[in-house]
Amino acid sequence: MLNFVNDYSEGAHEKILQRLLETNYIQTAGYGEDEFCREAAEKIKAAFSCPDAEITFLAGGTQTNQIVISTLLRPYEGVIAAESGHVSLHEAGAIEYTGHKVMALPGHDGKLDAGEVDAFVRTFYADENHEHMVFPGMVYISHPTEYGTLYTRAELTALHEVCKSHGIPLYMDGARLGYGLAAPDTDLCAADFASLTDVFYIGGTKVGAMFGEAVVFCGIPRPAHFTAQVKQHGALLAKGRFLGLQFDVLFTDGLYEEISRHAISCAEKLRAAFHDKGYRFYIESHTNQIFIILENAQMEHLSRSAAFSFWERYDENHTVVRFATSWATRAEAVDELAALL
Amino acid sequence: MLNFVNDYSEGAHEKILQRLLETNYIQTAGYGEDEFCREAAEKIKAAFSCPDAEITFLAGGTQTNQIVISTLLRPYEGVIAAESGHVSLHEAGAIEYTGHKVMALPGHDGKLDAGEVDAFVRTFYADENHEHMVFPGMVYISHPTEYGTLYTRAELTALHEVCKSHGIPLYMDGARLGYGLAAPDTDLCAADFASLTDVFYIGGTKVGAMFGEAVVFCGIPRPAHFTAQVKQHGALLAKGRFLGLQFDVLFTDGLYEEISRHAISCAEKLRAAFHDKGYRFYIESHTNQIFIILENAQMEHLSRSAAFSFWERYDENHTVVRFATSWATRAEAVDELAALL
Amino acid sequence: MLNFVNDYSEGAHEKILQRLLETNYIQTAGYGEDEFCREAAEKIKAAFSCPDAEITFLAGGTQTNQIVISTLLRPYEGVIAAESGHVSLHEAGAIEYTGHKVMALPGHDGKLDAGEVDAFVRTFYADENHEHMVFPGMVYISHPTEYGTLYTRAELTALHEVCKSHGIPLYMDGARLGYGLAAPDTDLCAADFASLTDVFYIGGTKVGAMFGEAVVFCGIPRPAHFTAQVKQHGALLAKGRFLGLQFDVLFTDGLYEEISRHAISCAEKLRAAFHDKGYRFYIESHTNQIFIILENAQMEHLSRSAAFSFWERYDENHTVVRFATSWATRAEAVDELAALL
Amino acid sequence: MLNFVNDYSEGAHEKILQRLLETNYIQTAGYGEDEFCREAAEKIKAAFSCPDAEITFLAGGTQTNQIVISTLLRPYEGVIAAESGHVSLHEAGAIEYTGHKVMALPGHDGKLDAGEVDAFVRTFYADENHEHMVFPGMVYISHPTEYGTLYTRAELTALHEVCKSHGIPLYMDGARLGYGLAAPDTDLCAADFASLTDVFYIGGTKVGAMFGEAVVFCGIPRPAHFTAQVKQHGALLAKGRFLGLQFDVLFTDGLYEEISRHAISCAEKLRAAFHDKGYRFYIESHTNQIFIILENAQMEHLSRSAAFSFWERYDENHTVVRFATSWATRAEAVDELAALL
Repeated sequence: MLNFVNDYSEGAHEKILQRLLETNYIQTAGYGEDEFCREAAEKIKAAFSCPDAEITFLAGGTQTNQIVISTLLRPYEGVIAAESGHVSLHEAGAIEYTGHKVMALPGHDGKLDAGEVDAFVRTFYADENHEHMVFPGMVYISHPTEYGTLYTRAELTALHEVCKSHGIPLYMDGARLGYGLAAPDTDLCAADFASLTDVFYIGGTKVGAMFGEAVVFCGIPRPAHFTAQVKQHGALLAKGRFLGLQFDVLFTDGLYEEISRHAISCAEKLRAAFHDKGYRFYIESHTNQIFIILENAQMEHLSRSAAFSFWERYDENHTVVRFATSWATRAEAVDELAALL
Repeated sequence: MLNFVNDYSEGAHEKILQRLLETNYIQTAGYGEDEFCREAAEKIKAAFSCPDAEITFLAGGTQTNQIVISTLLRPYEGVIAAESGHVSLHEAGAIEYTGHKVMALPGHDGKLDAGEVDAFVRTFYADENHEHMVFPGMVYISHPTEYGTLYTRAELTALHEVCKSHGIPLYMDGARLGYGLAAPDTDLCAADFASLTDVFYIGGTKVGAMFGEAVVFCGIPRPAHFTAQVKQHGALLAKGRFLGLQFDVLFTDGLYEEISRHAISCAEKLRAAFHDKGYRFYIESHTNQIFIILENAQMEHLSRSAAFSFWERYDENHTVVRFATSWATRAEAVDELAALL
Repeated sequence: MLNFVNDYSEGAHEKILQRLLETNYIQTAGYGEDEFCREAAEKIKAAFSCPDAEITFLAGGTQTNQIVISTLLRPYEGVIAAESGHVSLHEAGAIEYTGHKVMALPGHDGKLDAGEVDAFVRTFYADENHEHMVFPGMVYISHPTEYGTLYTRAELTALHEVCKSHGIPLYMDGARLGYGLAAPDTDLCAADFASLTDVFYIGGTKVGAMFGEAVVFCGIPRPAHFTAQVKQHGALLAKGRFLGLQFDVLFTDGLYEEISRHAISCAEKLRAAFHDKGYRFYIESHTNQIFIILENAQMEHLSRSAAFSFWERYDENHTVVRFATSWATRAEAVDELAALL
Repeated sequence: MLNFVNDYSEGAHEKILQRLLETNYIQTAGYGEDEFCREAAEKIKAAFSCPDAEITFLAGGTQTNQIVISTLLRPYEGVIAAESGHVSLHEAGAIEYTGHKVMALPGHDGKLDAGEVDAFVRTFYADENHEHMVFPGMVYISHPTEYGTLYTRAELTALHEVCKSHGIPLYMDGARLGYGLAAPDTDLCAADFASLTDVFYIGGTKVGAMFGEAVVFCGIPRPAHFTAQVKQHGALLAKGRFLGLQFDVLFTDGLYEEISRHAISCAEKLRAAFHDKGYRFYIESHTNQIFIILENAQMEHLSRSAAFSFWERYDENHTVVRFATSWATRAEAVDELAALL
């Protein structure tokens, strides 16, 4: 059965497994105080042109969002996010669990609009009763978004300017950052994220790692006693070496970019096939996720030979489904699915 | 200067102060374990026809919402509320502070629609990824709403049915319940709230008390060890007698209804005056709050002789303002304001 | 029946009730933004010789401890307190509810020892794994303590020095501060608390008010957006005027001191009676609480004519009980109890 | 340099790495809904003779303690633990972060005494003011303890009885459970933990896994919507397969027991060497941790050739240090260290 359900269905890139084997008996310090983590951080700083950044490795996306947001916000602040943002909808209330409100603004194909964010913050401060309200303390975006769309350089710059003007950090969730960087239609390069956000994370889990996300504090310092706070969240891995090792491999000889390009190339081929066969696209995007509106009987039929994700109901007779490619997608699987359409 | 800013500008009803003086040297147990509280609870149960209800007295509205919601929700649940609900907007994140999401649905003149609540809960359970989402665990409404509007018996019954069908409690914030009960156009009486909600509170602070709200658990039991939980929230008053005493007075000889009717009668007179002079109403309501759209220069002018609340910007040249009457509003003040218009 | 159970059994001082009546129809702003609060704050600053202090009024002791501690601590910090401290034992976990550990050190008649606090903090920082531990972020003391004992000026100075040397604030719970100030054997005066602590609160509930505590930030600034944080804790009273009014009365013409002296004079008389009759004291203290070890049969007997508090089991045959006097204790009641002994 | 610093210095057992390679391209469902997890759970249920248990895999020890404790406790409850317990001291306040108090009782070589736990709970309920205190809602023990000591079957049975009698669950932290099972002097076997606790976890991180702990709900059901709660804590691994896979390998053909026995055999050899050379033991224990009191100069000297852990200051001139063996300890390293002593 063909499987395009998501980008975390397989294990990890072989070079990572290979390196696990090679380094297995090296004895290291625990909790991220090892050579692998140091090495990986250096490589990331080079790749993103941010020599002064501070980098911490965490295990997963929700964990990263929860820790970054809750350690940066003051107790009386909330985080602004798109209604469709991962922190708004699909993290089981992990942000609220730490005591903070997610202040949802309308998304535009999953993206926040800088002008709307600005207006929201201005309206807040203009309200004479704002001490009875949650203070907007941070802006959360994802890139690519949950719909696979991308901010343009102009859009990201505008958001960054708005955040700077209000003195609040801009945080970017890059769970699929590799696929954003490799997209054919992006005008943003790695260094841009370090200069146009205050903190962002580079997703490993969905881009070839077993697990792991690299948090990059580029525009603001890492919160005080961050190790203690990570520990307090139950997120400090004893064998932190595995986080470092994986990012070390991914950022050696451009592996992260290379495998991301592979996923995009598979997605583009698939996208062309859907297009040729007259399928309706739910959203225009050029990263590794393809959102298609299927007539329900057609969906039923297709699901016998290929696995994909249910996204949402479109109407009585149609459903939005998602096909995801990844670093691990086989070229033959793409061809087979294309043939099936 | 005439003052219609809100319904908590004055002290407390004289009968309450009188009773304070009479009972001052009686020695009682602390923390709500006194005769006054027991007596008040009995009177409330009689007034709302709920002999089996369990009643606890708390000091203020946000405190009450925070404690009721956080003690009834399970950790993985959130509370559904209208976007304009007090818990959504004007409690400084007090619900999120306890770890729970406020799930805001569109309000209709401040009210939730039973069908929309039902659809929201159904959509949640239909989503196969709902374990990654916040569970809808409770419905919060206010009556009167923040816009002074009222649920009809049919609307409240429908909401109650939806909640029952999903096994989640319906909680009603009655900060201004007296003014709702006394409204000329309501078809809901006191006993209805006890039978059509699972828990509600009777507002004292805005209806003649110094402070105090009476929480009535009518459809579900009071949470286990509620005293301990109130204490844990920092909300257990040592001299709980003052809470009991005030509600005892308010629910003796129909005082609560009587002073509420006074406020409504003042509001209706004022409403008629606004109407006669051709003012635009922002919202149709018949409780103690009147929302008027003023041209900005007119607002400026009026504000020299009368105090009222800024509510929200309407457009470039207009503003929504609020005039509130209360148990303490003087008839002459109403006449003077009417003359000014 | 004679009642010496506690110091919050009666209502409030008559002058407070009188002032309630006089000012009842004055219209004021809500939420503590009124003249009464401003006036009371000025009087307190004068009484405690701290013209630059910032003052906020809250409703009760546990609420005050919870808010002061949780708004001053950073997320990774805990508060040091005596094992017998109110925050350690008798607040139903209100501090932990806000996410912070109470780090209990041994108490000496209810008091913390400066040297032991210093050693505790030094040991923490000396531990190379302290990033895996809770950071000591604040010191909590009560004065009088839960055992009615008092710090000497030398002891308080030493604690203050230790806190300064570690850069952490010293916070003093003054739920019964009046009784401490009026004690015959104290060498601390009002101004000392403002110079030897960073923040303290002046208890109203147990010293003649209906409710209310005045928090004085004397050595550190009040936390940012404190009103919003108080609101977020559900503790912002709509009619904040009542808090201001009560402290205004208490700090007019030395009323707070006067009624405190009355309680102490009653306690000293009672203490002398216990002493004369050969009763065993559980602890030496000269404030308004008297701790006596009673043989169980004797306790049984005495409890038929007088009410007092069970404190703790002493041994098989003896029990520690507490007799409390207050601003409201009648001289005749003291004589009657003395006669009973 | 010889390294006996801890039991998580190396990578993972080779069979785990081997299996990673073999299964890498198998496509599985995410979030623990995969075959590996199901398989591993079955093997664990067989190994611990608890066919009806419910099992969840988590990434690390502090995370596991935080999630198990916070999801089982009611909001007004705390967890009883030894003063030296990991949750009391070395988890950076992770339990308090979730709103719950750790109620520390004296440890006896790291162990709780059943009688003392019983007395503590009884005293709590006997206190008429216990609604103002934290309710004891759970007992936490570690086995082996933080000092490497072990409960006997009689001790564990007694604790279990006490917990049952008070209706609160007994939770056992088995971060090093393998080493406890393999100890020469234990009278507890795998099945005992399933029958004498309500929930326990089997440590993987310190016993040959890259990461991972298996939580076994044996005496009580797994909390409702546990997946959602794990997600809410930021602890739901997308590629949950890696957790299942590792435990599958560890519980195939007795690998977990085998590698634990190896560590114990190394430790016993080392222990004999220390004994023969006249070193002072700080604590008597027979698991994989050895606590030795070294004269400071001796410590200095030894640290030039071997790495070990500083544990605590013993006195002016002596220090307690820890030597840990593990599944990865080389026999030659043991011999070399023995020769060095």
